[in-house]
This record gives sequence, C-alpha cells and structure tokens, in this order.
Amino acid sequence: MSGGTDKVAIIGCGLIGRGWAIAFARAGWRVALWDSATGAAAASVDAIRLGLHDLETAGLLEADASIVANSVAVVETMQQAVDGASYVQENAPEQAEIKRDVFLALDRITSPNALIGSSTSTMPGSVFLADVPGRHRCIVAHPSNPPHLMPVVEIVPSPWHDDATVTRVRLLMQSIGQAPIVVKQEIEGFVLNRLQAAVINEAISLVGEDAIDPSDLDSVMKHGLGLRWALMGPFETMDLNAPQGFLDYARRYGALYESMGRALHVAAPWPPSALTRIESSREARRANEPVSAQMARRDRALMQLLAMKKTIGLDAK
Amino acid sequence: MSGGTDKVAIIGCGLIGRGWAIAFARAGWRVALWDSATGAAAASVDAIRLGLHDLETAGLLEADASIVANSVAVVETMQQAVDGASYVQENAPEQAEIKRDVFLALDRITSPNALIGSSTSTMPGSVFLADVPGRHRCIVAHPSNPPHLMPVVEIVPSPWHDDATVTRVRLLMQSIGQAPIVVKQEIEGFVLNRLQAAVINEAISLVGEDAIDPSDLDSVMKHGLGLRWALMGPFETMDLNAPQGFLDYARRYGALYESMGRALHVAAPWPPSALTRIESSREARRANEPVSAQMARRDRALMQLLAMKKTIGLDAK
Repeated sequence: MSGGTDKVAIIGCGLIGRGWAIAFARAGWRVALWDSATGAAAASVDAIRLGLHDLETAGLLEADASIVANSVAVVETMQQAVDGASYVQENAPEQAEIKRDVFLALDRITSPNALIGSSTSTMPGSVFLADVPGRHRCIVAHPSNPPHLMPVVEIVPSPWHDDATVTRVRLLMQSIGQAPIVVKQEIEGFVLNRLQAAVINEAISLVGEDAIDPSDLDSVMKHGLGLRWALMGPFETMDLNAPQGFLDYARRYGALYESMGRALHVAAPWPPSALTRIESSREARRANEPVSAQMARRDRALMQLLAMKKTIGLDAK
Repeated sequence: MSGGTDKVAIIGCGLIGRGWAIAFARAGWRVALWDSATGAAAASVDAIRLGLHDLETAGLLEADASIVANSVAVVETMQQAVDGASYVQENAPEQAEIKRDVFLALDRITSPNALIGSSTSTMPGSVFLADVPGRHRCIVAHPSNPPHLMPVVEIVPSPWHDDATVTRVRLLMQSIGQAPIVVKQEIEGFVLNRLQAAVINEAISLVGEDAIDPSDLDSVMKHGLGLRWALMGPFETMDLNAPQGFLDYARRYGALYESMGRALHVAAPWPPSALTRIESSREARRANEPVSAQMARRDRALMQLLAMKKTIGLDAK
C-alpha cells in the first residue's frame, strides 16, 4: 500500500462497501477495507476478488484481475484505513446515530483535505452531520446496488457543504467511471428512489385493482419501457418522440399526461391482496433457485449490458 | 403471395405500420400493405427493407433479409389486403370516427374467422367498436414504438370481446416473437403509458422545483434504474432486494414508499419554467443531428440490446 496512486478508505464492508471497493480498485486506486465488526473486512475479500474476475471476463477491466486485487488491503483500525486516503466512503448501517458517530470519528482522524462520502440511501446529511466540525467536506454519495455495476451516484450536498466538495466528489466519481449526478435539495428519497417509487406504487395499485397480472406488469417494463430507459432517459425519449423535439412533445401530449396523472394512485398504502398476488406469482417463478444464484445471474446480465453500452459509446463517460 | 403461410394485412403504413410489417415478415408471415392515402404503402417499402437488413446485421433475423422482404407486398385495395389474411393490424390516425369507420369496413370484408387488432395507444375499444357487428373478434393490440424492436404488446379486450379472441391474439403475438400482456380493464393510458406517466410527471416536477438538472435526471435513468429495468421488472427487482423475497421487501420498505408516494406530485400541470429548462438542455445536446439520424441510432442501440438479451436468454419467449 504505497506509491503515488490515490487511496480510498472503505468504512463498512457489506454488499455496498464491497461494490465500492471493486469500483475504486478497477480505476487503479489503492483500497483500504475496514469494518467495525471483527472479521467482516477480511470476509469481504473473496467477494471482491470474484467481482473483479467477473469484470475481467466481461471485458470491463483494463488490467489483470489478480493484479488489481492486490491493490485491496484489509486493515485493523479505522486510523490505518484513512491514513493517506484522499477519499473515504462510509457504508455503515442506516441509523442516524451510527452515521453521526462514524462521521465524527472520521472527521477527527482523516487528513483535513480528505473528502468523506456517505452511501446512505434514506438520510440526507442534515440528519447526521450537524455536530461534525468538518461537515463542509462531508457529503452524501449514494450509489445504486451493486455500485460497481450501476454507474449512477447521487451526490446530495448538506446545508453546510462547501461548493468545492460537490465539484471535487463529482469529478472524482467521474474519474473512476461512475455517473455522478447532483441532487440540489435534500428531498425525501433523493431522485432515483423517487422515480422508482412512482413506478412501484403505480404498479402495485394496478395489480390491486386487477388491471394486470404481476408477471405481465414485469413484462411491460423489461420488454418495453426498460429497454428504452437503459439507453436514454425520459427527457431524451420525449425529445425523440415528436417531430420538433421536447417542447413539441410537451405541447402535443401534456394534457394527456396531466389526465393520466390524475388517474395515478401513488400515495395509497399497498393493498395486502395485491402483495399476496405478487408474492404468489414470484414464488411460482423463483423455481427454488437460491437468492445468491439469482443475484449472480443479475450481475452477469448487468455486466453484459454495460459491455454492450460501452461498445456503442453509450456508457457513462 | 401464395402458399401455406399465414398472412397479415397491415392497414395504415406510417411508422407503426412499417414496424408491424417488419415484425410479421421476420416471423415468416406474408404481409400485405395498404394505406388509404395513395402511394403511402408503396412509400413504406424501402423503410421496411432497410429495417429487415438492419435486423440481419444485428443477428436478429434467421433468414436472408432480401428473401424475407419478398414476403411483403403493396396492394391497391383494402379488400386485396385482407383476402386470405387470418389477422389484420389497424394503424389508422388516432381519431375515434376514423377507427370506427375502418373497423366497420374491415368487419364487413374480412373472413369471419379473422381477428382484427388496433394499434391505438389512447382509445379503448369501447370508444370505436360499439357499432361493429363483429366486435367480439376486434381488440386493442397496442405496440410500443418501433414495434419490431420493442417486444411488448398491450392486449386490451373491449366490453364485447370474445375470450377466445384474447387467447388467440396473445398466442399469435407470442408466435411472432413479441411479448404480449393483457390489460384486463379499459383504463386510461393502459399500463405502459401509466407507468411512463408516473415517471415523466415526477421527473418534470423535480426539474420544476430545481431539485435536479435535466441531463442529470436522464442519467439517473440510463445509468441507474433503466439498466435494471431492461433486464427485470419492478416486482422481480423487489423480489431480489430483500433476503426473503418480495413480501419481505414490502414489509421492510412499504412505509418508506408510502411516505415517498405522498411526496410525489404526479397530477400537476407541467410548469412552463421546467419545460423551458429541459428544452434548453436538450437543444445543447442535440448537436444539430437530424431527428432521423437520432432515431436510426436509437434503433441500432435497441437492436444491440435485444441481441444481448437473446444471448443470455432474457428475451421475450
């Protein structure tokens, strides 16, 4: 763990921390793994090696996987993890007190120039950063799961952020091949989960009123909307679906969307009968395959998709 | 135009009709093209040939493109189009009177066993089928655009449908490689556009309250959610994101989604300031590329994605 390359400290080595470790190692960083639970960091190494190997197989790794894996090291203390690190990614449990304590500790022991990002998916920084003296250099950097296969990272500044922190974390994420975006306000769910909630709430409601069977609903997405959205966002899609572009689309179809909006039921509690029906449908299709095997299959499919997008120049740049 | 193969009549040869012609020809059907506007059917032939050629290049056509193209013929009258056709796909303009007149005519001149599907994206059958004597064999079969690259087809029975019509059209669509789903009620927007509206309305609102820049919003989709949704639907995704599957996910996160649901603003009219900002962002990125070139690029990307999904066994079966 020496030399001129950048170093990242991964604090918390569950699924998300492991993915981050792979993402940083892939980009040539030195990676230090630390977890407050004894043995947890060491236990993550095999999964990280396997992840790097899978990336190599998919043509998504420029160097040899086993060489890249050598840049990942397990350390014994939080202090060792952050020594010499220019960036720290926190992946502690999703509880405000825990996050606050971890950030207080990190702020005390890191180099004053280091930036500290949190993987939190539900808590804006204002929930756990108020008491942290160096809160100007702390920020939410929320990945999707798994981070090394889902490029998007939601950067959410807290009320006390330094503008330079936003800029530097955005550039840093770009430099390791992620697709950072900035959420300019501390809104509930940030942006990704807000869009996901809009779809999921409507999907469950449609099953609840028996407008569609669960497996058909999934088909609408994976054999329809999702194909487009893997390649272009909603605004890009609209821009291409009217002769004169986006505004033309808004003029032609705005009233229709407003009307459909009134028909959407996104705020209702999920009806239990719908949940039961969806569970039965999933059960019938799971075919007793263990979750780990299903996840591995999903990850391989994501890698194929990323490799395909890279080939045609539609990857995150 | 003879032999034992199935024959489809394509009524209306705009973008949607052309895509349907490609989809049926690809599956080995004889295709008759007719359009009420003189010359329109003939004008569509080059685009159909090109579409078949592109499919061949992408490895998505089993036979030789030029041989397949020979199964597509332009005819002079609606009667010639439907003669011997077991299925008719109507792609007339989106106006109730026009659809009604076309269905009245088709019902009169088709073989009594033929099934008649409408490509309408906005009108349930009850809007234009009430006066059609053979309305039991008429049904909405709404494709996504372009039909030959977006497998999903929304089958929407009217109040007067014959159950056998639903079953036969579903099987027919499966047999040509599409992904048919059944919308069991005549709800506004069917299902695909309801899910799309949930996303678009929320996306525009988020830009409207300056929570995110338009190009970042697109990134959240194409470098995040959309990658998953190209491979699996929302219920499949939920099933895989909690240790005990779908119901476990619903228990863990239901309250969060309900709370996010309350924060969603899906029924508001689109704020003009948001539309202006999105248009400016799109303008800056369009780079003066003609719409036709952008569409061709989108279609090639879709073909790569379909070929990739086919390779890993995630295509519509």
